[in-house]
Amino acid sequence: MDTGQTGTPRPGESDHPHLSGGAGTDPDDQSGGFTIWLTGLSGTGKSTIASILETRLRGRGLKVEVLDGDVVRTNLTQGLGFSKQDRETNVRRVAWVCALLSRNDVVAIAAVISPYRSGRDEARHRIGRFVEIHMDAPLHVLEERDVKGLYRRARAGEIPDFTGVTDDYEPPLDPELTCLSDGGEAPDVSADRILAKLHALGYLTSA
Amino acid sequence: MDTGQTGTPRPGESDHPHLSGGAGTDPDDQSGGFTIWLTGLSGTGKSTIASILETRLRGRGLKVEVLDGDVVRTNLTQGLGFSKQDRETNVRRVAWVCALLSRNDVVAIAAVISPYRSGRDEARHRIGRFVEIHMDAPLHVLEERDVKGLYRRARAGEIPDFTGVTDDYEPPLDPELTCLSDGGEAPDVSADRILAKLHALGYLTSA
Repeated sequence: MDTGQTGTPRPGESDHPHLSGGAGTDPDDQSGGFTIWLTGLSGTGKSTIASILETRLRGRGLKVEVLDGDVVRTNLTQGLGFSKQDRETNVRRVAWVCALLSRNDVVAIAAVISPYRSGRDEARHRIGRFVEIHMDAPLHVLEERDVKGLYRRARAGEIPDFTGVTDDYEPPLDPELTCLSDGGEAPDVSADRILAKLHALGYLTSA
Repeated sequence: MDTGQTGTPRPGESDHPHLSGGAGTDPDDQSGGFTIWLTGLSGTGKSTIASILETRLRGRGLKVEVLDGDVVRTNLTQGLGFSKQDRETNVRRVAWVCALLSRNDVVAIAAVISPYRSGRDEARHRIGRFVEIHMDAPLHVLEERDVKGLYRRARAGEIPDFTGVTDDYEPPLDPELTCLSDGGEAPDVSADRILAKLHALGYLTSA
């Protein structure tokens, strides 16, 4: 028992560690929930697309929750930084919550950079009903656009571990869909394509 | 912008920090979900009761998730220790997930020591539909019972910051219900009383 070690679960904090609570079992095989996982560099429009999808899916009467990078880091993963290990933990935690929601009939939309393939694959494995969307744009386009000036600051060394500049991004090898956010495809069009893909995959009915 | 500070949300991790995702807005005012919050010292039977409630509520066709101390510390709050601040963060995070579930028609059952009044009150405020159950037993009974030998080890100084021994527990001042787990009330009886309370409060219908 690692009682001295910070972060190790410790007996006595609960009585039955084998309880089903936590995203391990599926209490409802009939769940209509699933997870849309938007991955991509900063500035590729993940949150914009998440917001459009949220509105449209709610309009169809579905329950929807968006797990957005900033919100998640405030509520779920405060204290984590941007090292590879911390990023993996961040992604793992988002995936855990997405799994909880998805198996309870909710459409969870994750809008997180999630730069590493391993973390996304683990999320896919854990969640099961998982639709990975790669929000893609050439780095030079993002740097030119640079709405918030973050790329400039990253280049200037003011922001360490910035994905795409000083930190790796591993693009998905086989995502369910890739959206080009290089300016050639409007967000509404991307959202349309995602919804069409959800139909094709059987997650949405024509009703 | 605190880009250097670990744990501070950082622009660029998402595009729209104002997005609804996160337990702030309620997309479904009609949600039948709510949270049962079991608080109490180690060994008071929180997880046992959670497990019984889980089974009974599922038997009524409700969606139920148990957020149990150990599971939570493995999946949601790994890296946190047992300082006052870390315990508060742990509770805050559990509350955040309970809020997400509750507003999406799920009955969330939290089985966590949650020793501080402030944290539980914050959870109540955030979640809204919140039923606080105090699992109560005299410390000397818990120490005599000491199924896992944790109290003995805490007394021997082998486990630091152990609630009730070397760390505070602030009992609820006005919980919806108190269950005595001093041996005088069987877990099944406690569960019956909790279900009756849920009926009385309007969270369960007679159907």
